[in-house]
Amino acid sequence: MASAAEKRCERLEEASARAVLAGADAVLFDCDGVLWRGEAAVPGAPETLRLLEAAGPEGKRLCYVTNNSSRTRLAYTEKLKRLGFPPAAPRQVFGSAHCAARYLSHALPPGGSAYVLGGAALSTELQAAGVAHLGVGPAPPPDSAHFGSRAPLDADVRAVLVGYDEHFSYGKLCLALRYLLRGDCLLAATNRDHRLPLEGGSAVPGTGCLVKAVETAAEREAFIIGKPSQYMFECVASEFDIDPARTIMVGDRLDTDILMGNNCGLTTLLTLTGVSTLEEVQGHMESDCPERKKLVPDYYVDSIADLLPALKA
Amino acid sequence: MASAAEKRCERLEEASARAVLAGADAVLFDCDGVLWRGEAAVPGAPETLRLLEAAGPEGKRLCYVTNNSSRTRLAYTEKLKRLGFPPAAPRQVFGSAHCAARYLSHALPPGGSAYVLGGAALSTELQAAGVAHLGVGPAPPPDSAHFGSRAPLDADVRAVLVGYDEHFSYGKLCLALRYLLRGDCLLAATNRDHRLPLEGGSAVPGTGCLVKAVETAAEREAFIIGKPSQYMFECVASEFDIDPARTIMVGDRLDTDILMGNNCGLTTLLTLTGVSTLEEVQGHMESDCPERKKLVPDYYVDSIADLLPALKA
Repeated sequence: MASAAEKRCERLEEASARAVLAGADAVLFDCDGVLWRGEAAVPGAPETLRLLEAAGPEGKRLCYVTNNSSRTRLAYTEKLKRLGFPPAAPRQVFGSAHCAARYLSHALPPGGSAYVLGGAALSTELQAAGVAHLGVGPAPPPDSAHFGSRAPLDADVRAVLVGYDEHFSYGKLCLALRYLLRGDCLLAATNRDHRLPLEGGSAVPGTGCLVKAVETAAEREAFIIGKPSQYMFECVASEFDIDPARTIMVGDRLDTDILMGNNCGLTTLLTLTGVSTLEEVQGHMESDCPERKKLVPDYYVDSIADLLPALKA
Repeated sequence: MASAAEKRCERLEEASARAVLAGADAVLFDCDGVLWRGEAAVPGAPETLRLLEAAGPEGKRLCYVTNNSSRTRLAYTEKLKRLGFPPAAPRQVFGSAHCAARYLSHALPPGGSAYVLGGAALSTELQAAGVAHLGVGPAPPPDSAHFGSRAPLDADVRAVLVGYDEHFSYGKLCLALRYLLRGDCLLAATNRDHRLPLEGGSAVPGTGCLVKAVETAAEREAFIIGKPSQYMFECVASEFDIDPARTIMVGDRLDTDILMGNNCGLTTLLTLTGVSTLEEVQGHMESDCPERKKLVPDYYVDSIADLLPALKA
């Protein structure tokens, strides 16, 4: 792995791919835009992962690292199976919902619970981790006695957790602020993604928009669980015996996947089947800004299926 | 008026108050925290304004300049009357709802309309200014066919306006983003206030939280109507013949009232009946940061009733 200043985003050809893969014991994959788009697998991606898992004398450990907080670990294993990827156990999946639950299970004081802006998957993962929580689902409208500015507060709440929440509302924002004003209340968020791209070039607002709203009200910064936060890699490393110097992070976003990989000392591989482009990489490489240099990956491929020749050879 | 670097936040005593008032033809007042708190007038404030309006050979022109977008001009004149202040005409009141309507009436192309995150007062002011608009009121829930990510878009929308909206929701945020992604769509916001303080030390989230959510999704900055934006003073100056060098801005917030006043070349007077404190002023004065120096007012009083001796003398 080159140091940040030297990364050059080289195209991974068959020979260099063989060398890079020989130096790796583990490969971490972002999912959407890398393995699939919507409900369609990236062509050749399932076969690539099957061969990776069997490559070399001991195979590679595969893990799935995603900022999406609206699916459980189990749901990811089911999607991998449905799209023809090699079978995965839930413990190979590191979604921001699971990792947020892991964080709160350690960070909350005994008896403490979390006020959650988020959906059913986040609630499921919190429950699985034994984290008491409230707030998931629709909030009362402004004309209700239980509206956020009037609702009674729960005495046990010691954290506000912000995830993807289709029921996000001003009333929920009021409640979040009121909990945070009590002082001994953590503020955490699953991720800062601005947008979730839809097929056809449209997009919906990402969790990062909701995080900004809460942070602005609370006048403090949230602890971020998802990429580029190193916390996500710490979760992987605490579950598996992972050597960063022998681990590859594969992703389609420079500002999340590649930045986390670079910050954690992993070899980083950009795939062009998702959000980020080579033009953006070029801009970062030519910049004098050290922060932007951190967004440059070691390597790139057009698609992870480009690894097939090296794996079949 | 001293230049920004020289401002020293001097206490306005009777003699200096007399001199400052003699040099002013117009006085602009922020309302909440300056003239009243909730439904109670600041003691002595109504008499102060009555004497100001009659002071000197021609009296002073009084205007009311507020970031609150949830009241109409008319509602402000009624509140002034109810609390015993001198009678005011709606055209003396510059709320961010009215000023936003004024802005859009000029900025929108012919036939263009605005998608509005805001309440009834904002809608009333837009209507009064002849600005076609939609979006005010509750939004459909996520399980509805008219939810923001699925709702049909209005072909005429050429602006998104963000104000205080108790019905703010993820669905509205989706719709705002979809309009803004169409490209030829303005983004404006009534103000950036983070919080609205409540009596007893609590607070609810301000419009600035909603603005941040929309800006984060849209990946662009909104044009801000309210203080500290100079646009608000331009509205006053376009309605009345106002000489900035002979105008006093009175406010309780350094980051909105005082900053706008200083940026527009007005004499600035901080009153301590609201949000900001002398400790904050001290911090700004001692800072080496030019941006923070701009938050230092020319003068301060404990309450605007402190002007009474100078006015009665």
